[in-house]
Amino acid sequence: MAFRVAILGCGTVGGGVACILLEQRESLRVKAGDEIELATVVDLFPAQAAERHGVPRDLFAGDGDELTPDEANAEVDRVLADDSIDLVVETIGGSGEGIVRITRSALESGKHLVTANKALLALHGEELHAAARAAGKSIGYEASVTAAIPIIRGLTDGLTGEDIQSISGIFNGTSNFILSQMASEGQSFEDALADAQARGYAEADPTLDINGGDAGHKLTILLRLVFGLDVAYADLPRQGIDTVTAGEVDFANEMGGVIKLICFGQREGDAVYATVRPMIVKRGNLLSKIDGATNAVRIVGRYAGENVMIGQGAGSLETGSAIVSDIVFLARYGGHPMPERPTSGLKLRPLGELELPYNIVFETADVPGITGIVATAIGKQDINIDSVSHNRHGSDNAEFAIATMPCTRTQIDRAVADIQENHPGSLLSEPRVLPILV
Amino acid sequence: MAFRVAILGCGTVGGGVACILLEQRESLRVKAGDEIELATVVDLFPAQAAERHGVPRDLFAGDGDELTPDEANAEVDRVLADDSIDLVVETIGGSGEGIVRITRSALESGKHLVTANKALLALHGEELHAAARAAGKSIGYEASVTAAIPIIRGLTDGLTGEDIQSISGIFNGTSNFILSQMASEGQSFEDALADAQARGYAEADPTLDINGGDAGHKLTILLRLVFGLDVAYADLPRQGIDTVTAGEVDFANEMGGVIKLICFGQREGDAVYATVRPMIVKRGNLLSKIDGATNAVRIVGRYAGENVMIGQGAGSLETGSAIVSDIVFLARYGGHPMPERPTSGLKLRPLGELELPYNIVFETADVPGITGIVATAIGKQDINIDSVSHNRHGSDNAEFAIATMPCTRTQIDRAVADIQENHPGSLLSEPRVLPILV
Repeated sequence: MAFRVAILGCGTVGGGVACILLEQRESLRVKAGDEIELATVVDLFPAQAAERHGVPRDLFAGDGDELTPDEANAEVDRVLADDSIDLVVETIGGSGEGIVRITRSALESGKHLVTANKALLALHGEELHAAARAAGKSIGYEASVTAAIPIIRGLTDGLTGEDIQSISGIFNGTSNFILSQMASEGQSFEDALADAQARGYAEADPTLDINGGDAGHKLTILLRLVFGLDVAYADLPRQGIDTVTAGEVDFANEMGGVIKLICFGQREGDAVYATVRPMIVKRGNLLSKIDGATNAVRIVGRYAGENVMIGQGAGSLETGSAIVSDIVFLARYGGHPMPERPTSGLKLRPLGELELPYNIVFETADVPGITGIVATAIGKQDINIDSVSHNRHGSDNAEFAIATMPCTRTQIDRAVADIQENHPGSLLSEPRVLPILV
Repeated sequence: MAFRVAILGCGTVGGGVACILLEQRESLRVKAGDEIELATVVDLFPAQAAERHGVPRDLFAGDGDELTPDEANAEVDRVLADDSIDLVVETIGGSGEGIVRITRSALESGKHLVTANKALLALHGEELHAAARAAGKSIGYEASVTAAIPIIRGLTDGLTGEDIQSISGIFNGTSNFILSQMASEGQSFEDALADAQARGYAEADPTLDINGGDAGHKLTILLRLVFGLDVAYADLPRQGIDTVTAGEVDFANEMGGVIKLICFGQREGDAVYATVRPMIVKRGNLLSKIDGATNAVRIVGRYAGENVMIGQGAGSLETGSAIVSDIVFLARYGGHPMPERPTSGLKLRPLGELELPYNIVFETADVPGITGIVATAIGKQDINIDSVSHNRHGSDNAEFAIATMPCTRTQIDRAVADIQENHPGSLLSEPRVLPILV
């Protein structure tokens, strides 16, 4: 008896899934221990999707070249009501009411759900996991985080002997491409973004890539999985890369680091600190070596130390491959309930409380005595200074950077407030503060 | 009803397993969906092992501080006959008749087997897998290849949607430490080896680390898993790092590469080419960036492109963590038969037939015309030259290196034979040939 799969949405990712299921049919049968049958595909434009992905037209639901939205919805409902379907691949996208209803219904009607939809899982993950548990079915979401890197299976079924202390990574290829260009070519953010768009790495509207939103969705998923935290996505401190200047890139280079958009979750006792933001990654950390649109995850465990996984975070077949891996897994092991969310009693704490080394770039008047004023104010907050950069002298200003030993962001904010209050006019702009990842 | 585990052999690795099982008991219960109970530990020196790993003495089988070999064997037999034991961890080591009997008996008596023993699996893997299938039990061997890197689970359950084209990696930390020292400090092989021994990275008898034997065991395991090949370990072409000279390291550096002991398996149509040997890894390949005792695996798939996993390849808790991950997996999913070995009809072919770029170091008399003789002989074999290094002039010799475009080793051997036959005395020693990994 074959394991029957329906694909809802045959765009870039859904098409990749269909293509691999058809090409690898024999090999998948061996791996899954059962025939994996692509039973049906629902898409608004079956003729176009069939041609684009090389999938026979007769595998698509409905007649004609296009379905009306009503017709497509009716086909989706037919799939959900079809008890012969074992697993639904959701590759429609979005996180609105419609897609929540479809995915929840898939589970409630006794089907496994596999999806690459990080926004859906970040915003409605708890609800969907509850629906899966209630129905005794599973959600496969390998493709939702760093597409082709097997990090989800690596965490749920690979590193289970581990006591994970921190997870960090580069989860957004577009922003990493932009930052890589800024570092290697000395480009401004605006020029590097235009370059990324010209090469097809960035969408016409790159907001979610640039502002850390996409990476934040992925981090939210991992925080649930690794630390058992149900973090409201809106509560995750985020900062995008659009604020990163060529000057900061230059100072980072001087101190032996490179700026990356880092997803970061670290456990200290019962507290978890998490954020998405640009950080300076020192060159000894493998994440500093990840250039272009590549993704990477770094896990530090109590027993196994450092594990780094690197691969492609997007693409039709890359994401499709991850979805097919989930299908194989659920065909084999889907009869088991999903593991419970760990209830370790961990709490998300404000990032400002975590001690990290920081780099602070100061723009000041180009007059003697400023470095002393700044360094003194930092010392008054009990912050140890690790290094002071060379001064960059402008026409009527100077820039320099101070790298600190581990301290809290709160301490730094107090030092800056002290300078602004007691030496008004000495800082020409708000200092630029980036955490340093060693 | 708890899932009961027995550990046979409580040395470095077995002790790490016991330690993690006790420390993580509550967290493992959640992950496994069942209590994982450390039922018993058998070791020749229970008192010493208990103290060293912080494991209560009463978990060890037998009385007194030491067991005689006969007493220990009797305790092992008692474990094998105990139907309440669900899983046996074999951390005794060796690949002789005794350990084959114990591991096969564990499976035949209806227990899962988890082991870090790469020699055992390389030499007797087929027999043990057959015993597991016959008994409806599973073998967990995550720890046998690159200890803490979840590559086995990553391949059996993570990248199953993938059609893997090649697998390469650094699987031996000792040899990688030695080669890293040679590259960064300019040390000779002998000095770097002594350094590794002084730091505890190399055994008093480092033969299996140095000659590629240990890495070869691991590659044999992966060739079975990825390509379905039952390669007799003796048939795997191997070359150790003891032949690598400081001169070769220098030439590799000049061409933008670094010498690593590489495990290599590549599929071309129905052929698989596999070897363990020093190769020059170009700096664009992430494997070139893996220094010290770290391990790494690079997988290239048809759909997902490149995936690289990096982590610790040895150590008590690092290896123990991987074994505990296998225990958790089998506690959850052990009721399912192991996936069949893929029977793709692939064949291991002689490495000499595979086209690779090569670097060839020639030691010649320091007289005009030699470069022309060598380059002409290479051209006559239809080999394109990529680059010729600077000459190193010795007191009465010269060394230079020629990097080729992809060609077969057979072509190179013919070119060398041609030079030796037609220009006797021009080559002062056998040319040193290393494949280049791009």
